[in-house]
Amino acid sequence: MNTLGVVHRNITRAPRADVDALAPFGVSTLHEAMGRTGLMRPYLRPVYPGAAFRGTAVTVLLQPGDNWMLHVAAEQLEPGDVLVAACTTESEDGFFGELLATSVRARGCAGLVIDGGCRDVDALREMDFPVFSRAINAKGTVKATLGSVNVPVVCGNALVRPGDVVVADVDGVVVVPAERAGEVAEASRVREANEEGKRQRFAAGELGLDMYAMREPLREAGLRYLD
Amino acid sequence: MNTLGVVHRNITRAPRADVDALAPFGVSTLHEAMGRTGLMRPYLRPVYPGAAFRGTAVTVLLQPGDNWMLHVAAEQLEPGDVLVAACTTESEDGFFGELLATSVRARGCAGLVIDGGCRDVDALREMDFPVFSRAINAKGTVKATLGSVNVPVVCGNALVRPGDVVVADVDGVVVVPAERAGEVAEASRVREANEEGKRQRFAAGELGLDMYAMREPLREAGLRYLD
Amino acid sequence: MNTLGVVHRNITRAPRADVDALAPFGVSTLHEAMGRTGLMRPYLRPVYPGAAFRGTAVTVLLQPGDNWMLHVAAEQLEPGDVLVAACTTESEDGFFGELLATSVRARGCAGLVIDGGCRDVDALREMDFPVFSRAINAKGTVKATLGSVNVPVVCGNALVRPGDVVVADVDGVVVVPAERAGEVAEASRVREANEEGKRQRFAAGELGLDMYAMREPLREAGLRYLD
Amino acid sequence: MNTLGVVHRNITRAPRADVDALAPFGVSTLHEAMGRTGLMRPYLRPVYPGAAFRGTAVTVLLQPGDNWMLHVAAEQLEPGDVLVAACTTESEDGFFGELLATSVRARGCAGLVIDGGCRDVDALREMDFPVFSRAINAKGTVKATLGSVNVPVVCGNALVRPGDVVVADVDGVVVVPAERAGEVAEASRVREANEEGKRQRFAAGELGLDMYAMREPLREAGLRYLD
Amino acid sequence: MNTLGVVHRNITRAPRADVDALAPFGVSTLHEAMGRTGLMRPYLRPVYPGAAFRGTAVTVLLQPGDNWMLHVAAEQLEPGDVLVAACTTESEDGFFGELLATSVRARGCAGLVIDGGCRDVDALREMDFPVFSRAINAKGTVKATLGSVNVPVVCGNALVRPGDVVVADVDGVVVVPAERAGEVAEASRVREANEEGKRQRFAAGELGLDMYAMREPLREAGLRYLD
Amino acid sequence: MNTLGVVHRNITRAPRADVDALAPFGVSTLHEAMGRTGLMRPYLRPVYPGAAFRGTAVTVLLQPGDNWMLHVAAEQLEPGDVLVAACTTESEDGFFGELLATSVRARGCAGLVIDGGCRDVDALREMDFPVFSRAINAKGTVKATLGSVNVPVVCGNALVRPGDVVVADVDGVVVVPAERAGEVAEASRVREANEEGKRQRFAAGELGLDMYAMREPLREAGLRYLD
Repeated sequence: MNTLGVVHRNITRAPRADVDALAPFGVSTLHEAMGRTGLMRPYLRPVYPGAAFRGTAVTVLLQPGDNWMLHVAAEQLEPGDVLVAACTTESEDGFFGELLATSVRARGCAGLVIDGGCRDVDALREMDFPVFSRAINAKGTVKATLGSVNVPVVCGNALVRPGDVVVADVDGVVVVPAERAGEVAEASRVREANEEGKRQRFAAGELGLDMYAMREPLREAGLRYLD
Repeated sequence: MNTLGVVHRNITRAPRADVDALAPFGVSTLHEAMGRTGLMRPYLRPVYPGAAFRGTAVTVLLQPGDNWMLHVAAEQLEPGDVLVAACTTESEDGFFGELLATSVRARGCAGLVIDGGCRDVDALREMDFPVFSRAINAKGTVKATLGSVNVPVVCGNALVRPGDVVVADVDGVVVVPAERAGEVAEASRVREANEEGKRQRFAAGELGLDMYAMREPLREAGLRYLD
Repeated sequence: MNTLGVVHRNITRAPRADVDALAPFGVSTLHEAMGRTGLMRPYLRPVYPGAAFRGTAVTVLLQPGDNWMLHVAAEQLEPGDVLVAACTTESEDGFFGELLATSVRARGCAGLVIDGGCRDVDALREMDFPVFSRAINAKGTVKATLGSVNVPVVCGNALVRPGDVVVADVDGVVVVPAERAGEVAEASRVREANEEGKRQRFAAGELGLDMYAMREPLREAGLRYLD
Repeated sequence: MNTLGVVHRNITRAPRADVDALAPFGVSTLHEAMGRTGLMRPYLRPVYPGAAFRGTAVTVLLQPGDNWMLHVAAEQLEPGDVLVAACTTESEDGFFGELLATSVRARGCAGLVIDGGCRDVDALREMDFPVFSRAINAKGTVKATLGSVNVPVVCGNALVRPGDVVVADVDGVVVVPAERAGEVAEASRVREANEEGKRQRFAAGELGLDMYAMREPLREAGLRYLD
Repeated sequence: MNTLGVVHRNITRAPRADVDALAPFGVSTLHEAMGRTGLMRPYLRPVYPGAAFRGTAVTVLLQPGDNWMLHVAAEQLEPGDVLVAACTTESEDGFFGELLATSVRARGCAGLVIDGGCRDVDALREMDFPVFSRAINAKGTVKATLGSVNVPVVCGNALVRPGDVVVADVDGVVVVPAERAGEVAEASRVREANEEGKRQRFAAGELGLDMYAMREPLREAGLRYLD
Repeated sequence: MNTLGVVHRNITRAPRADVDALAPFGVSTLHEAMGRTGLMRPYLRPVYPGAAFRGTAVTVLLQPGDNWMLHVAAEQLEPGDVLVAACTTESEDGFFGELLATSVRARGCAGLVIDGGCRDVDALREMDFPVFSRAINAKGTVKATLGSVNVPVVCGNALVRPGDVVVADVDGVVVVPAERAGEVAEASRVREANEEGKRQRFAAGELGLDMYAMREPLREAGLRYLD
């Protein structure tokens, strides 16, 4: 996954129908439906309240303080894609701002998650172009050193392959492998149906101790109640 | 304070009247009124703007990545209580979300401070169930290992005993020992009355240098004015 | 720059006309217009959404957990000034709150950036007194040890001299040396005019690869396209 | 636990015999023998390789950037005591150095753990006066504001009461409640005896899977082996 | 890469000859020889001075505060292997200590890199069992929840597949993909030969400006020399 | 101080005699002798035990992930100089290693402090070329973008001007302004003489409470002794 200086033009995106099937579900549900996998680290946060996105990944591997590859990636975007930008090292520079957002939106890009910094946040909010980043930072970047586009990348400690589905909301960012998107949508549907019943019982005052039959396992584990 | 696997069912809560007497005062005032004590570390932040709470503590000691004890704690809640969840180690996992919020609210719980992560933030905001946490994180947790409920805990580097009053607002989270709540309310009232006078004098342009008679102490400390 | 216990009463502020000329421009633009210099580290964030300011710096060097010098600085403020508060060490205590904000606003102060903590955030938001800080923290401070006022300080790793222009918005905080303010305003105007044209071309779908003539340099750097 | 400006002269130290009984055991063993409790956070590290100590706690609550209370605490020390210094806020200043080490050693103090900074590390190493701290920092401190001595403190997120036993080695710092020291020594002895047998079996190639009879629980939990 | 509850028994290790061919080279050289890829984040540090290792990866995906899978992994080790332990979330607990080191060494394991904590550091140093970790922490762990063994993992933000070569020394930890190990050894040899010549020229006082012919590119980039 | 792309060839170094006069004193003493100023932040640490240096600063302003300017700086070094390398942003990349150390040592350079990363630590230790850095990191850097040499820089939050004296030891890194070096040496001598007397009195068991006449100020501040 580590070759630098490469752009893969042909990637296998998750089927559009599968991506759409994920639409009703938030990041926490999707993460659970995949057996608690696929989550990026929680330091990746939305740059404005309400930012959220869902789409197929065009991946970018950046060099620190250098956003050249984001321009290269822009050409590879198709409607419904999102950008996933990793960096070869930890960098909080402002790799992405209003002009790049304008450019990639014109290509149909639905959002960006970047393991780095982002700027022009007022403009991004006005455009409603959702970005999740590790920092908000006005620091400008150069265009001098090659990275790669559409190679597998590690972003926020999660592996993302080109074409995987990436979903971001207030709870964080999750990666759904392209080939599992349909199955994960179905598992999410089942989970949410299941949760709705629980929610009503909890709201009525039923305890998790009873709903999940925890009293006996707790007793066996040695829990002692003292008065 | 360290025994694991224990639930104390009978705790001595601060008197309701004393808790109510604290209502007019924010975290900064209460912290000052207690002689600048009782404050949790500032990394504990509200998960949505405007989140705030006040109540008597039911304490929980969690194991990392495990929210079993939150269900055990739910049964011990009474109206007006708040949950204070510490962890035996540093963990940012998403121990708490919409279902638990629904459950504990049905028991009368007024809010949660957790030295860990929280998820389902959109739902919590819609419910207006206030949570203060060290992270927002979709990461799910298991129910496998015993902690304790209603033992003294250290949360955000502050000691909290069951029944203590915990108040949280945008300035942070403060613990008022149960037996001092009435006295602290009175000290807060005095302080705020005192501050109102100062506020008006400051707004009229009077300097702190004069209001607090600082010029002489500054001179004695050696402050030099240069032109 | 390190002498403690000193207050400089006469400082050379950037000309008001030059400060006003900077008004149309955000932090990212100003930072770029200065050749990517002058930026404070990105951990300095607004304490409420929408906080922003611009003005000439009255600088303060604080001791940890001690806000005495902020009262000394208040007397040195003139309308259009902003406070820039550094600390001799890392401290997140709540050095500044509603009363000081009331005082310095009465002196014409337009905002504060502090390499430390801030409290009374609800009141600051209601007053719309903009503060950029490294933490929100109710922790109170003492008035016991001398620092300095209107000496050069390092705040967020950036050098600020008394009278320099400091601009803060959602993208961060930037320092414009007093003697360069006019030149920077002009460079910013040129840059924004230039960017407007690019924005329109990006919005129309033109790629940065073409707009910036990057294809040849990328090829020379060795970028390979794979199908 | 929060009263400031107080020195308790009479504290109940763990019996010397109990402290001595803990001598054979390291921090990891003691923490396990107490049911995995009592550990300070791992950011508290020795300031030189090989630093380690064990003794009864004289506690200090410091103000940020102020080491006045360490001098007050020195008078309360008895041979076999150790100093446990917490701070009312996060501070990495150099509260402690060679002179204080000389002073408290003359009083019989066996070491220091401080939730703050320490300096004169070369001299401390030469004296072999063991210190565990959150930072090494030359930053000097003042003597201006009251804290307390021999009140319960929270240090590294762990509660320490005066007279408790504190043990520090390369694995970290652990607090043994004074009244439990004898029992913990015995539990540690049992644990180490038990571990010695395991060590030999592990060294001979026996697997934990077999030694702990894990194969069946793993199968029941759903573990799948794939070829 | 995300399936939990799975153990792959058959993995393709890098050929022993290729692993051995990497022996002369340090982490910095290997990272450069791979085109500056494969490096783990620098927070992974040796737990004692001089710790270093090299071997083929048996990978482990841990749950927070749970070391069950390390016992499962022990059975999969062959002489010359190293353990690479990732965690589904950020956790600094002490997953690994003397007993596990004894066990895995008996299986031929040459070292461990763990994106978590480690304890019994004195014993590990005496055994000279090299561990690279994000923390030293006495905190004990449970054996309750399934992870996986020999699935691709992300450790320190780097992707590691079972059988890849992992090399660790004072400069950090680097992953050499199994199929590239031979090629990387050759590229490292070339690089070191090249560096030896440079070292001698540098030692003789030749400047990098001349050795690398940088003067002209610097001039073209606009560098100005001022007297 | 912010102009990029500039090399100042003529700088005013602190007189050699003044630099030599500082030789007997450590960082903590020098920092105190300057009135507790001039200290870099404590995250700058020696890359091997015992590393220490003292010399006149040749300053470098680096771009993230780019060490081009270190080669430019090498030419400006004179015997007795040290390198002080700041970066326009936070970067932990490995800007400096064995080859550059060989080159700058050949020019008479006595050491380096870098607000970034360093590699080849084994070689540096063998050469005994002292480096203080914020990280040890094998990550390689490019030579593509201009910074500056011999401009004032902010390193570890401290201002350093070319020619200032920089002293580094286990307690940290301190900057002595060139024009104050002689005066600071004298103040350090006085301080150390003063401390020697105190050391002996402390060793003899005298308390700081008595030596510094603190009992009365403590009583006036309100300290209460309880039995």
